[in-house]
Amino acid sequence: MDAGGAAGMAVADTGATGVGDGSGAWLAAAGPAARAATRVLARSGVDQRDAALRAAAAALREKAAAVLEANALDLAASTARAAFRDRLTLNEARLESMAGGLEQIAALPDPLNRELAAWTRPNGLRLRRVSTPVGVIGMIYESRPNVGADAAGLCLKSGNAVLLRGGSDSLHSARAIHAAMREGLRAAGLPEAAVQMAPDADRVHVAAMLAANGTVDLIIPRGGRSLVERVQREARVPVLAHAEGLCHTFVHRAANPEMARRIVCNAKMRRVGICGSTETLLVDAPVAATLLPSIVADLRALGCDFRADERARAILPELPAATAADFDTEWLDAVLSVAVVDGTEAALAHIARHGSAHTDCIVTEDADAAATFMGGLDSAVVMWNASTQFCDGGEFGFGAEIGISTGRMHARGPVGLEQLCCFRYEVRGDGQVRL
Amino acid sequence: MDAGGAAGMAVADTGATGVGDGSGAWLAAAGPAARAATRVLARSGVDQRDAALRAAAAALREKAAAVLEANALDLAASTARAAFRDRLTLNEARLESMAGGLEQIAALPDPLNRELAAWTRPNGLRLRRVSTPVGVIGMIYESRPNVGADAAGLCLKSGNAVLLRGGSDSLHSARAIHAAMREGLRAAGLPEAAVQMAPDADRVHVAAMLAANGTVDLIIPRGGRSLVERVQREARVPVLAHAEGLCHTFVHRAANPEMARRIVCNAKMRRVGICGSTETLLVDAPVAATLLPSIVADLRALGCDFRADERARAILPELPAATAADFDTEWLDAVLSVAVVDGTEAALAHIARHGSAHTDCIVTEDADAAATFMGGLDSAVVMWNASTQFCDGGEFGFGAEIGISTGRMHARGPVGLEQLCCFRYEVRGDGQVRL
Repeated sequence: MDAGGAAGMAVADTGATGVGDGSGAWLAAAGPAARAATRVLARSGVDQRDAALRAAAAALREKAAAVLEANALDLAASTARAAFRDRLTLNEARLESMAGGLEQIAALPDPLNRELAAWTRPNGLRLRRVSTPVGVIGMIYESRPNVGADAAGLCLKSGNAVLLRGGSDSLHSARAIHAAMREGLRAAGLPEAAVQMAPDADRVHVAAMLAANGTVDLIIPRGGRSLVERVQREARVPVLAHAEGLCHTFVHRAANPEMARRIVCNAKMRRVGICGSTETLLVDAPVAATLLPSIVADLRALGCDFRADERARAILPELPAATAADFDTEWLDAVLSVAVVDGTEAALAHIARHGSAHTDCIVTEDADAAATFMGGLDSAVVMWNASTQFCDGGEFGFGAEIGISTGRMHARGPVGLEQLCCFRYEVRGDGQVRL
Repeated sequence: MDAGGAAGMAVADTGATGVGDGSGAWLAAAGPAARAATRVLARSGVDQRDAALRAAAAALREKAAAVLEANALDLAASTARAAFRDRLTLNEARLESMAGGLEQIAALPDPLNRELAAWTRPNGLRLRRVSTPVGVIGMIYESRPNVGADAAGLCLKSGNAVLLRGGSDSLHSARAIHAAMREGLRAAGLPEAAVQMAPDADRVHVAAMLAANGTVDLIIPRGGRSLVERVQREARVPVLAHAEGLCHTFVHRAANPEMARRIVCNAKMRRVGICGSTETLLVDAPVAATLLPSIVADLRALGCDFRADERARAILPELPAATAADFDTEWLDAVLSVAVVDGTEAALAHIARHGSAHTDCIVTEDADAAATFMGGLDSAVVMWNASTQFCDGGEFGFGAEIGISTGRMHARGPVGLEQLCCFRYEVRGDGQVRL
């Protein structure tokens, strides 16, 4: 999830400050309308869904002035600090990027009706497993208004209806964006109920969506940790969420030193606030004395701070000592925990104890060590000689992502169009009955 | 799920009557032990897992006397009605079937480490998506003691650790079966913590498992509807469950009459208590007058009763009139709802309104009608010219199933070894860093 540090970012709104009539009546009407829309979407051709995406992009461009005006209202009402205001702010370039994103999704292959498997049984029954939409997806997000457009675009392409509930800070912006999405659906002859938005930011809508087993098939929260934790705690509906990204890079004794320096620098410092950034560096003991000083010097030159274990401090005594909690901390900042370990198994043991099973990397020229490391990890993404910051739907070639899942069911890692699908079985017979 | 009508069966125990110390301390120790076991299982070879399954089968046969003695204790304590006692009862044949089931699972291909996809990015990064275990699975079941052996076998083969919590009625039997599973693990050098069982039937263990986000990765309830509903209501952990199977067979105007009679008879009456049995017959208007009388006669000869709409009663006035609720009823009994509809779209509309998106079938010789029907349904399994009773992991060729999922995430339909897996990404580079 490379959108400026959504995971773990400070949260100004989890719905507590919303306004509205408090009735929660919205979902009671929106849910069945969304379900009805899924039946149309599931039977629609990809050309029609793509036309809706392109028309929505055009509408966003046409309505740019109105969207920016709405955004100005949100900004005027906001009392948030600078970083938060930046997330909330739209401008011409960001609007163009949003519209271009919808067009990019339109250009991706259809994720629906793919044959995932096909086989014939001894009794002649022919079976196929075919990709289908999930159904109705509830998207709960916070201040970043572009999330509504991205999520609606991905859901629409994958044949899912989406119920959007944005934060109170971005309500005017989100409404203006939603109007463009609706216009796209209308232009393509698809039901507007395919993309619906809560009428206000009352938290009653969040509670209703979380409880809507049978109405909402999947909740995707996108925002800070307190939002995600609330959703995971309260949801009666399946959740695809991003919890924690405590990523490790292990520099093995057989690492190419220059490559190790380059990868660690990028993995830590390219963007410190994203979930795929490396939080802990593990250095294999035999190369620690030679490699650690240059890696630390590189990082320090980029403004990185350190929390080092005793063995690392034996080499570089000036490094601040790590506390017990530091190796369990997802910094999302220019801070790196550093430990010296004795070989691959020790690195695996450290990661098993402290990691979050998100993304972990080994740097080595030794294929056996790489195989041991990758085979011994339980992480959604295991890497060999590459920056952990590559954990991203775009970088994986998915075209776009709705987020990164740290769960273990349905999808792990970047969630793109394919992961927004489920499947069904088609069984073709010639009159077979069961014995 | 073809195990004698687990779905919707009357439930004698959902944990409320269990005994135990009430401390719930079991999971606090069992959870981390299970997690540690997953790390061994994930790195184990399939030969080792298969050896454990075969050794467990051997132990079940060796310990047959002890298991039957334990079962006699359960039966002596039980005050349940006959159908329930039958589910609880073990005998030589059922033990042999349990042991043979473990051997069949051992003979299946390894579901782990399958390459699900592989591609290379323009920057040279090579990506693979590979199947992995889910992790720790919590299995909550009721009186049928074989469920413990089947579930443990499937979880073990797929590299998952399992926490079993059986019902109070079958506690002695379940313990004796668990002892054989442990013996199998020991014999193969795998950690016994891979298959653990709650020490008693105190419902505190159920509550603890349902709340154990981060400790338990997936809950599978297997039993009556009140158990499943409680689990879905209370779980903070992903759930794979079977809710309802309101299956339809639609006899289209272009159906082969003999095939229609054969399929409807089997779909309704082969076993009335399983989730894939047809509950509602839809007959296309142009053939209703000619086909319905013979189908009804066939079914009546097998002891079936009917609830018919007005159009069906216009043809066969002696059929009892259906109430509004009948078409929403999963009978799980020798009762069939019958309606006459005007063509495929009307059948789809009826199913959209009343169905449970489980398994639905069209009988027709018209390929276009079949395509329209199958493409217009939202069901986990859509069939053409075959009995809905084929909705079963064994019949699908999965070798064995742990249940049938009516959810829309991760897996739909029969859940076999493949559906007990998730995946991860392996990324191989040559030192790439992200721009």
